Amino acid sequence: MMHIKVPATSANMGPGFDSIGIALELYNHLWFEEIEEGVEIIVKRKQEIEIPTDKNNLIYKTMVDFFAQTGNVMPGVRLIQEDYIPMIRGLGSSAACIVAGLLAANHLSGRHYCREQLAQIAAKIEGHPDNSNPAFFGSMVVGALDQNEMRYVRLDLPKELVFAIMVPDFPVSTEASRKVLPDRYTKKDAVFNASRAALLVASMYTGKYENLSMAMQDRIHQPYRNQLIPNMDRIFKAAKNYGALATYLSGAGSTLMAVLTEEKAEEFQQKMKAYLKAIPNEWELTLLKPDTKGAQLIAE
Amino acid sequence: MMHIKVPATSANMGPGFDSIGIALELYNHLWFEEIEEGVEIIVKRKQEIEIPTDKNNLIYKTMVDFFAQTGNVMPGVRLIQEDYIPMIRGLGSSAACIVAGLLAANHLSGRHYCREQLAQIAAKIEGHPDNSNPAFFGSMVVGALDQNEMRYVRLDLPKELVFAIMVPDFPVSTEASRKVLPDRYTKKDAVFNASRAALLVASMYTGKYENLSMAMQDRIHQPYRNQLIPNMDRIFKAAKNYGALATYLSGAGSTLMAVLTEEKAEEFQQKMKAYLKAIPNEWELTLLKPDTKGAQLIAE
Repeated sequence: MMHIKVPATSANMGPGFDSIGIALELYNHLWFEEIEEGVEIIVKRKQEIEIPTDKNNLIYKTMVDFFAQTGNVMPGVRLIQEDYIPMIRGLGSSAACIVAGLLAANHLSGRHYCREQLAQIAAKIEGHPDNSNPAFFGSMVVGALDQNEMRYVRLDLPKELVFAIMVPDFPVSTEASRKVLPDRYTKKDAVFNASRAALLVASMYTGKYENLSMAMQDRIHQPYRNQLIPNMDRIFKAAKNYGALATYLSGAGSTLMAVLTEEKAEEFQQKMKAYLKAIPNEWELTLLKPDTKGAQLIAE
Repeated sequence: MMHIKVPATSANMGPGFDSIGIALELYNHLWFEEIEEGVEIIVKRKQEIEIPTDKNNLIYKTMVDFFAQTGNVMPGVRLIQEDYIPMIRGLGSSAACIVAGLLAANHLSGRHYCREQLAQIAAKIEGHPDNSNPAFFGSMVVGALDQNEMRYVRLDLPKELVFAIMVPDFPVSTEASRKVLPDRYTKKDAVFNASRAALLVASMYTGKYENLSMAMQDRIHQPYRNQLIPNMDRIFKAAKNYGALATYLSGAGSTLMAVLTEEKAEEFQQKMKAYLKAIPNEWELTLLKPDTKGAQLIAE
């Protein structure tokens, strides 16, 4: 069978709403092969929400759409899913399914689209490229999208950076999370985010970590989603006290992120775990390095 | 005498309102020395607006403020100004005076502030750092400012880039130019600018010129200042037809900028000059390379 592994992604990075995302060393796996006809889907790892094993399965639906758009005839397929990216937590689990579906369909159809072409398709399906881009290319990807096309730049992240993902026991749906955002922003806030977005990219490039606490600031979504994530501000404050360079809300939440240098990671982990144990809700903290390769297609 | 040369700067670069600016190889010059008492100011080159030769001179006022703030006694000074940066055209002529004044006062006071400290002071005087930063550091500088401090990153620009400044015969005052801006922006526009600002920095870093036409887009100021600059959109369109990678309004205007690769520069210059001659108003086109050093203090 062919095997695809797709990394988790953390989008809406700081001021980079719908634009800046990173890939992390945490993966969903898909094995797939052509069969006579129909669809067989095996889900090897239970998730919080039951994953459909019929034609409503997101990977399968993405494949069907790809075949419809490219004018090829969709064959029968057997899919085996083994997912480790938490669902509805702002870690790109839907994007991972779309990316896996596109790669699988691209392989089976023999279209041989390059990864850039697939990334264009995924960005349009998602409506924003900040999960699908890092899922395809790894590391940190900066992107912008208009009606016609998506433009992006992939950046290597400084090697000594570690990301602490803090995943709570409650989900935040993207829909609920979009609803709390205002329709309009002051000029000050619009300028605030654009300047921080530019500073974030420049500071990551040059390893100027001392800038990150300012460069990761956001006024487009975090102040409004605060209400959906109990203790968000307290957790961010504690994370900074324990050595985080910067903190941000991953995607539309509910996962909270802290950015660290390797040398501070162990002490941070100890102290932050103790802190999270003492507050309401269950919070699971995991230290992750960035994934640098993006989704991989492996013959097995 | 001591001699200071300060580069022209082009701020509000594309989506980087109040944040991203570049320095250009076009300079104002200041010679200064201590005298017994009082102030003598000699203006060696006439400008469109008469430059004060008394205590209202901007360089002199900046020096007086610096001395007042640092608690040193202001000596008598002789200043000789020779300015080539066009005034009230969005090319940082005021910032150049402030930067020259700070460097001169720093030298005469013996405070020996480093350039970073002076850049902090200049950003606070100006209220935004995107002229003063490149005037101090050269090249392209990305900056953000809050009540307490300014953070910045200086980036080398790709060597093959050339900037065409197109300076009209009419000024646009910063005040008039600020007045036409709305108080509020849609979420779409705020996200638009942040994503482009991130993409601009990343594309400049990696030399991905093919992204610049999207990455230089702006919805914070250009669509509104359009009305103050006759034929702005037509000129931008023509510039792109003649090979410009991207175009933008410099500072608060009235200068229009086109970004080019060296190989296209000569043909662009020819065609664009002919085009500008055929439309209303006088437009002066000059090709400039980025200044890479920032303001220099030279003993003569």
